[in-house]
Amino acid sequence: MGSRRRKGCSVERVALIATGSELVYGSIQDQNNAFISRSLFNTGLSVVLHSTVGDDVEELKSVFSHAAERAGIIIITGGLGPTDDDHTVEALKDIYDFDLIVDEDGRKRMEAFFRSVDREPIEGDLKMVTVPEGSLLFPNDVGLATGFLIERDGKMFIAMPGVPNEMRPMFQERVLPYLIERFALRVLPSLELKVAMKREAEVNLLVREFAVDFGKIVWGITTSPGLNSVTFVGKDGAPLDENALWAEAERVFGDALLARGSSSIEEEVVRLLRLKGRTLATAESCTGGLVAKKLTDIPGASAGFTGGIIAYGNEVKKKVLEVPGEILENHGAVSEETAAAMARGALLRLKSDYAVAITGIAGPDGGTGDKPVGTVCFGVADGDRVETFARRIMGDRERVRLISALYALDKVRHLLLK
Amino acid sequence: MGSRRRKGCSVERVALIATGSELVYGSIQDQNNAFISRSLFNTGLSVVLHSTVGDDVEELKSVFSHAAERAGIIIITGGLGPTDDDHTVEALKDIYDFDLIVDEDGRKRMEAFFRSVDREPIEGDLKMVTVPEGSLLFPNDVGLATGFLIERDGKMFIAMPGVPNEMRPMFQERVLPYLIERFALRVLPSLELKVAMKREAEVNLLVREFAVDFGKIVWGITTSPGLNSVTFVGKDGAPLDENALWAEAERVFGDALLARGSSSIEEEVVRLLRLKGRTLATAESCTGGLVAKKLTDIPGASAGFTGGIIAYGNEVKKKVLEVPGEILENHGAVSEETAAAMARGALLRLKSDYAVAITGIAGPDGGTGDKPVGTVCFGVADGDRVETFARRIMGDRERVRLISALYALDKVRHLLLK
Repeated sequence: MGSRRRKGCSVERVALIATGSELVYGSIQDQNNAFISRSLFNTGLSVVLHSTVGDDVEELKSVFSHAAERAGIIIITGGLGPTDDDHTVEALKDIYDFDLIVDEDGRKRMEAFFRSVDREPIEGDLKMVTVPEGSLLFPNDVGLATGFLIERDGKMFIAMPGVPNEMRPMFQERVLPYLIERFALRVLPSLELKVAMKREAEVNLLVREFAVDFGKIVWGITTSPGLNSVTFVGKDGAPLDENALWAEAERVFGDALLARGSSSIEEEVVRLLRLKGRTLATAESCTGGLVAKKLTDIPGASAGFTGGIIAYGNEVKKKVLEVPGEILENHGAVSEETAAAMARGALLRLKSDYAVAITGIAGPDGGTGDKPVGTVCFGVADGDRVETFARRIMGDRERVRLISALYALDKVRHLLLK
Repeated sequence: MGSRRRKGCSVERVALIATGSELVYGSIQDQNNAFISRSLFNTGLSVVLHSTVGDDVEELKSVFSHAAERAGIIIITGGLGPTDDDHTVEALKDIYDFDLIVDEDGRKRMEAFFRSVDREPIEGDLKMVTVPEGSLLFPNDVGLATGFLIERDGKMFIAMPGVPNEMRPMFQERVLPYLIERFALRVLPSLELKVAMKREAEVNLLVREFAVDFGKIVWGITTSPGLNSVTFVGKDGAPLDENALWAEAERVFGDALLARGSSSIEEEVVRLLRLKGRTLATAESCTGGLVAKKLTDIPGASAGFTGGIIAYGNEVKKKVLEVPGEILENHGAVSEETAAAMARGALLRLKSDYAVAITGIAGPDGGTGDKPVGTVCFGVADGDRVETFARRIMGDRERVRLISALYALDKVRHLLLK
């Protein structure tokens, strides 16, 4: 149990509770429980239960109590907001009977915030900084509601705001360091690989080809569009030969393996551009700015990314990217020829070393027998040379656009690796 | 409670349980609970709890029992597979003590499947078609594990495979029709409003100003960046006066209310551009293509969106958008003057009726005392007129970029409403 546990004694059990009626109704999907679980993976704390419950005091009390039967640490997200349906503090108070106080630092931050946006706090806002007396407070650096930790009957309850943008930094910068200190946690040795643009089943088969002793390693794959992450952990705290694993990963995955520490294809592209002192420009039709958006998600992208042109209509392709009218007429806007001309145009116009161009049919309409929805053409210019290729991408508009952007970025990554 | 309930009597309570250690570890995120919740919304069944629990018999039993205390219908996904860590049937058997039988139809389908892929069933495969005696079976049209429904002590337990591809059709084609028939469910009337660029707390207060009878309405707010959705449902199946609600929404929210059926600010912008036969271009610095990406998320955006220029570096601002060097020198790249010049440049270059420009400091670096991280300047050109404004946006790089894009889009929406 939370407060009674002796250091290093046994594995602490954790229950995670996301609150919010919109979550149990299914209007939106909770992301917080999975995020906290991932953050605790490798710490030695063991998450045994996720629950999601609506904004109702009786439901909350029942779920909090059940969680306290199953775990020593209960982490609650949501229900700290200003409105009538925020009940986390009230439900805890009903169970554990504490007094409430106002977090004065939080109140000051809140007042400063409202002044800065020329607004007055309104009814209910004070609720966001009202906390159990005697609790440990977690200031909110991004939003208004204060997080807190209260211990009762040997159980530790931690409450954080439900908005992921506020919860995540609070958890990583304040709650997790506290837990690590308090329970003398040590991070188990682990290694994470990122593999670009391969299917999960293929990655799974390839990992099995690693010449390592799998008797002493636990591993798992987390898949996201265009990227599979493989995490290796030493079994039962066994040491992990990271160098041997990395060497096998390089041997088996080759260029599909992202550099150590890179967490996405776009991050790797920005890193390589800086490293090589080269610049990139984009010319996008069907992806409509997604490639540029992904590049500029990365802080410091400006060092290697000069800019982009979104040539959604043919007029912009002709006038701004200087794609010759004959190419558009003879080959169509979705063609490798047009993609090549777009890349050349971007290079010239935006004065970069490389340019990548995308033109395709994202759907749902616009497909033809010849060029069905999902047909996407790419052009990559490197000085005078322009390389083109085409792909057929399955799925809806969103997926076609996303996978197209990733193909483009991964092509640039390969060029930069040469 | 499940089996004892008389038709039309009261709202049936439902608990959803996703099983799988990979889910509580956070390696992958459960999608099943949210899917089932969404499918049940408006049916009159009330989902009160989601839980996710690992593949451990004792944990499963505890969660199943707690769910049965809170709900009459318990829907379990996962744990029906062939491997040692599939325990759903075992945990239920421990609680309710039933006999097991083999689903012979399921066994035949399984054998036919293995013949078709030239493989033999292996140890454990039979587990996928082993079900409680006396249960109602849900054949699996896509995979191998049979779903089932068993009632005990007035509680209804429904078990389905965890793989979403198998669970979804089983739920929609077999389980949901059964529940609709069994409990004489009907879809409840509901109305959803979308309110742009207001804080949740403010929306909450404003809804309370609606001159309607809240004794007969249940409502809730779902918040996402830049947008609050308010859903109204008739209480206990009471009819909903949608026109009266809509009139109140228009009165109270004014221009912040999105048109009926529009689900986002960008969708509304694209709709209004088409409706008015006008065109828009974008000039983005700190948002790096996000405004254009959002516009082109909407199918048919090409009718009103001509294109955009991502002027990440000052060179592109000068050379492509023709922002005068003196403006950049005298006012800085992040200034309303530069934003105005960028908007003018985009209008000219991309030949559109309107142009919107954004330049700001998204962070984490680049802030100054004068212009801290989060300072963002906007310019909107409408023919000869250019309007500018500036905002201070709290949060990390991702949030500053997202909220900036939404301010820009919402400004354009307001222009188009005039």
